[in-house]
Amino acid sequence: MTKPTDNWLGDEKLSGQLAFLAEIDKLKNVLRKTFLMDRSRHENTAEHSWHVAVMAMLLLEHANDGTIDLNRTIRMLLLHDIVEIDAGDTFAYDVQGYADKEERENAAANRLFGMLPEAQKDEWISLWREFEEGSSPEAVYAAALDRLQPVIHNYYTGGVSWRANGIVRSQVLKRLAPVRDASDKLWAFAQEIIQKSIDQGLLKDDPKE
Amino acid sequence: MTKPTDNWLGDEKLSGQLAFLAEIDKLKNVLRKTFLMDRSRHENTAEHSWHVAVMAMLLLEHANDGTIDLNRTIRMLLLHDIVEIDAGDTFAYDVQGYADKEERENAAANRLFGMLPEAQKDEWISLWREFEEGSSPEAVYAAALDRLQPVIHNYYTGGVSWRANGIVRSQVLKRLAPVRDASDKLWAFAQEIIQKSIDQGLLKDDPKE
Repeated sequence: MTKPTDNWLGDEKLSGQLAFLAEIDKLKNVLRKTFLMDRSRHENTAEHSWHVAVMAMLLLEHANDGTIDLNRTIRMLLLHDIVEIDAGDTFAYDVQGYADKEERENAAANRLFGMLPEAQKDEWISLWREFEEGSSPEAVYAAALDRLQPVIHNYYTGGVSWRANGIVRSQVLKRLAPVRDASDKLWAFAQEIIQKSIDQGLLKDDPKE
Repeated sequence: MTKPTDNWLGDEKLSGQLAFLAEIDKLKNVLRKTFLMDRSRHENTAEHSWHVAVMAMLLLEHANDGTIDLNRTIRMLLLHDIVEIDAGDTFAYDVQGYADKEERENAAANRLFGMLPEAQKDEWISLWREFEEGSSPEAVYAAALDRLQPVIHNYYTGGVSWRANGIVRSQVLKRLAPVRDASDKLWAFAQEIIQKSIDQGLLKDDPKE
């Protein structure tokens, strides 16, 4: 367990929160497969989390479910990848990495959120699980944005991450299932961006059987 | 004016939103004076925005005002620095930079938020202004976090940014005024972290008159 190095104001609760705040700074050094739009470097998970949280604000009107709680969606997106500090980023198309992803991420959630005061720990782990399990309209909408964002990045960077990893159309479509469930409008957009990517040679079509 | 390069689904509104989404990727390349906690590099404004948004969730219980709308606070923090894409990061203690900060940032807000559909543009500019003007309890609480975060970073990095820029106690205290207004608990913490920083030689005390 990570212990707070300082006991601020002699207050164990506040000290735990501040130690957590310092600990999650490490998310700025977790690199994703995605490149920045200008291709200058890989994107890190902290800035990705910011980008998808802004997407949640930006695109809410396109969600099929008109009752989505934006506050819960954004909070989910802000913390959905904090577990990567311990568990690392698992590439969307890494079958082997996905085999023990759940186990690695559960341990990470227990250690990291375990730095928080008890009630907050329970609330944040529960928000994180809700996202992982897609067990609410907010979680499905949040997952849709999380899946759509790297597709947009790939399109604007000439498919650099798709091409480097030999990704084909059906793999991308499978990843985008939450988009189909969350928003007719964004699903139509996703299909259009994939078709354009194939037409422009950024993404390979599936091999003919 | 930046124009969308693609007309997605033949829908001008959605196309503007997606062009905005691609444009704000540039915030990941705007560097702040602050260093990451591990001192490996300067922090960028996108990941800073994520960090302060998480702070808003984390520390809400310590705000004096028990009626703060967390959703509005977080949305404000997610977009409060987007103007830096055009206007650059103005260092907290840069007197010259502050002389035309408002003018530069107003022009930036008009160009960047101007990419959004009309109603959204008005809403986002108004959220940004609310933050800038500190005109609500949410804006004051948000500003408190935005001011506190680099102080915490400075403390954990041995005062690297304070020392490089010859910053003294009274300058830091002045910057922290919104913390004093937003939270007795966080203000007590701020005073403690500053005293510790001075005791450990990370921050200089004011010269004796």
